[in-house]
Amino acid sequence: MTLVPRPPFVTRVPDGDNRERDVCGQCGFIHYVNPKVVAGAVIVEEGKVLLCRRAIQPRRGYWTIPAGFMEVGETVEDGAKREAQEEAMARISLDGLLGLYSIPRIGQVQAIFRARLIEPGFGVGQESLEARLFAWDEIPWTELAFPSVHWALNHWRETIGLDTFPPRSNPEGDLGLY
Amino acid sequence: MTLVPRPPFVTRVPDGDNRERDVCGQCGFIHYVNPKVVAGAVIVEEGKVLLCRRAIQPRRGYWTIPAGFMEVGETVEDGAKREAQEEAMARISLDGLLGLYSIPRIGQVQAIFRARLIEPGFGVGQESLEARLFAWDEIPWTELAFPSVHWALNHWRETIGLDTFPPRSNPEGDLGLY
Repeated sequence: MTLVPRPPFVTRVPDGDNRERDVCGQCGFIHYVNPKVVAGAVIVEEGKVLLCRRAIQPRRGYWTIPAGFMEVGETVEDGAKREAQEEAMARISLDGLLGLYSIPRIGQVQAIFRARLIEPGFGVGQESLEARLFAWDEIPWTELAFPSVHWALNHWRETIGLDTFPPRSNPEGDLGLY
Repeated sequence: MTLVPRPPFVTRVPDGDNRERDVCGQCGFIHYVNPKVVAGAVIVEEGKVLLCRRAIQPRRGYWTIPAGFMEVGETVEDGAKREAQEEAMARISLDGLLGLYSIPRIGQVQAIFRARLIEPGFGVGQESLEARLFAWDEIPWTELAFPSVHWALNHWRETIGLDTFPPRSNPEGDLGLY
């Protein structure tokens, strides 16, 4: 293997900024690191919610709502629909933002929508081991992959019967660690 | 100036992925590029909204609501509060998400809250030339910096008198180009 010189990055506060960044000492490039957006949906079909069992790390084998990192060039709504397609082979329409959650420790913002299937059926996507509908009292609470899955499911339940609703943020004082 | 060899990045679809990424041919590092989050607020004081005239590019000299890129380690709410402090020296509390907008062309998601001052007064931050309160019919519509400032101000107006409200997305078919 050939050794490649690393770019001469230095850590300093750029002009006009107020916090340290990694800056290339040669070309001045500033390497900003910003939070990423996860888009997802609580997909509801006849009162049941669609969960997928994760085929990938982190939390392989645990259940989640379809959700994943937004891509450049799409809207947040498109991202949620794409993830439903990829993870659960589900075509969905969105009918409201359930939650806008922050997980500061890992630099994530999660935008989770309420959704429904726009055509019958779903399947097991490449990143899933299994996909199925759960009635409220069947949800495998102790086998959910992430705190935000708990939050979104609970917030969804509060919106049953409501046409419009404000989105929730993190539960008070909960920063999504697990 | 010393020439530094560029890392041998190649463009390919990583295993388990479904789109092209820049991947380092030596170490396998995948350079994911994802949208960034802008957090901001329509800050209301006695029925007027707080706008700042931008001291920086893009759109120097045009008016905007306080808003800017979220930092890792903060929540989206903290980001909106920090930007109000930095750009308008304003201490605010948030009372609802007005809009969650997407600008796909530039890879941005904008989370704009309704807010009010929690202590009297504001000022001109480092990134602003001027800051002032505008009544609705004083807003300099033709001198606003970005389409999303129009969207947020119009969505704010629809929430006057409402304690809770669903957030808006982009106006139908509008991807925020200008």
